[in-house]
Amino acid sequence: MKYEVFYGKGMGKVKKEYPEIYETIKKLNEVVYTGKILDYRTQKLIALGIAASNCDETATEKQMRSAMKELEVTPEEITDVLRVVLLLSGMPAFVKGMRILDEIKK
Amino acid sequence: MKYEVFYGKGMGKVKKEYPEIYETIKKLNEVVYTGKILDYRTQKLIALGIAASNCDETATEKQMRSAMKELEVTPEEITDVLRVVLLLSGMPAFVKGMRILDEIKK
Amino acid sequence: MKYEVFYGKGMGKVKKEYPEIYETIKKLNEVVYTGKILDYRTQKLIALGIAASNCDETATEKQMRSAMKELEVTPEEITDVLRVVLLLSGMPAFVKGMRILDEIKK
Amino acid sequence: MKYEVFYGKGMGKVKKEYPEIYETIKKLNEVVYTGKILDYRTQKLIALGIAASNCDETATEKQMRSAMKELEVTPEEITDVLRVVLLLSGMPAFVKGMRILDEIKK
Amino acid sequence: MKYEVFYGKGMGKVKKEYPEIYETIKKLNEVVYTGKILDYRTQKLIALGIAASNCDETATEKQMRSAMKELEVTPEEITDVLRVVLLLSGMPAFVKGMRILDEIKK
Amino acid sequence: MKYEVFYGKGMGKVKKEYPEIYETIKKLNEVVYTGKILDYRTQKLIALGIAASNCDETATEKQMRSAMKELEVTPEEITDVLRVVLLLSGMPAFVKGMRILDEIKK
Repeated sequence: MKYEVFYGKGMGKVKKEYPEIYETIKKLNEVVYTGKILDYRTQKLIALGIAASNCDETATEKQMRSAMKELEVTPEEITDVLRVVLLLSGMPAFVKGMRILDEIKK
Repeated sequence: MKYEVFYGKGMGKVKKEYPEIYETIKKLNEVVYTGKILDYRTQKLIALGIAASNCDETATEKQMRSAMKELEVTPEEITDVLRVVLLLSGMPAFVKGMRILDEIKK
Repeated sequence: MKYEVFYGKGMGKVKKEYPEIYETIKKLNEVVYTGKILDYRTQKLIALGIAASNCDETATEKQMRSAMKELEVTPEEITDVLRVVLLLSGMPAFVKGMRILDEIKK
Repeated sequence: MKYEVFYGKGMGKVKKEYPEIYETIKKLNEVVYTGKILDYRTQKLIALGIAASNCDETATEKQMRSAMKELEVTPEEITDVLRVVLLLSGMPAFVKGMRILDEIKK
Repeated sequence: MKYEVFYGKGMGKVKKEYPEIYETIKKLNEVVYTGKILDYRTQKLIALGIAASNCDETATEKQMRSAMKELEVTPEEITDVLRVVLLLSGMPAFVKGMRILDEIKK
Repeated sequence: MKYEVFYGKGMGKVKKEYPEIYETIKKLNEVVYTGKILDYRTQKLIALGIAASNCDETATEKQMRSAMKELEVTPEEITDVLRVVLLLSGMPAFVKGMRILDEIKK
């Protein structure tokens, strides 16, 4: 299931210790990634762009890995997301995103 | 041309007074919105998500208006972008985006 | 109910047009504001601090108004929240918060 | 004294090399954490919420450690702070906070 | 005195109602703007860059006005600050800064 | 050339795989750091202030290193930049900047 992949092990603890938070986040994920109008793939690219724009390295790396693994998003597509980040959020956010992408590719 | 629409009147002054900045931003836009791998429409939706995530009202409104006018992006598609904003950036950013969208629709 | 107060009219549209998002946010609110360990009042002060720290004027004003109306939070208590904002997020965020508080008090 | 705990070793250098900055920050801390209206504990929880909301790992960890050590704040209370972060700043900030908390608890 | 100009009327209330906060911010200003190594003018340009980079319209406008009035900073110099904002924080922050500058010049 | 120093190895990949992005960023750098009105040194100090204000450790360290190496900016001057960060962006950003500076000096 898609939320399992995204959450990572950090959410394992939440599931065990705070099941009511876990259930709500799970429900929130389902409501967010409906895949009705925009497909799931497009929404994941938007999520990747937001994470990279915030200079949040951990979240950006997670988004890139899950996009590549789950949805076979290519490095070229991720670079196209990062181009938008360059324009809207500046060069440091772009360079950081390119570096994370490069480390994942290795 | 697409960058004309995006820039708005703020860029008019830049074009006149600082043509070298204007030319570079124009070139930057062309390099960002290549439409080669990801199409222009998808990239604009990513731009919209980043703007809404940053709680930047002016930029969000501009992105929404240009997406609707240039690319016939629908309110339902914008809501799908804002769903991602809700998950990644929290409720205030989502509510703000929905309010701006609602004001534009009127 | 507390979430009604908080959401404001922006959420009215969401309730009507996207009831599944509305229901999830409502559930999210309930899971967040449990009032079990930290009381609701303390959690609202934390929410106010976060909003003011992000320089988000609309959200800060909403949080201040609902804190004062729902929970009889005093201007002195809000100032104590803004003191923390001064230390952690700097003078512009503090001054902005004090100005919003002052306009509400009138 | 409370500011000693908070500052960490980074401030040691400041104290030695720039005593006038150190003294001012010390005074700023005293003015912020007055404990007159809101008690010090509540203000520290607000500080923790702001740090976690900004996705600043170092500051979040510092705030958590000092809250637990100085004020016997429990993991459950910190989780209640992070619930507010989830609502106001989104899932990545929440997950990051929960992970930091989990690493400290070990 | 320089801090008087910067604070604006928002600080008037603080001075009257919370003199201890006012005095500390005044002292903080003195410690920040020492004018010993970097001159006050350079520090103000840095402050302007930070405000514009944060997309904080009110703070950016205040910084621009006080820089022009107090220190005779020219629109060309402010544009040079905004060039750095373009590179580091992206086009929306730059365009917003140029628009504010243009409105002040009128 | 100055942009080579700034970009670091992250840009090496961009240069090879996406030469059109590389060329545009190079041109953007030239348009930003004109050195006509404000000298390059002042603009670099502004860049450093923005990076430190955003709590972006990697970018802050890069800016500090290149400022010291390229332009012989002294630790005292960087501290004067960080004083402005303290006032405008709060103590955590200041402490983080001072820690990075201290680690570079060693």
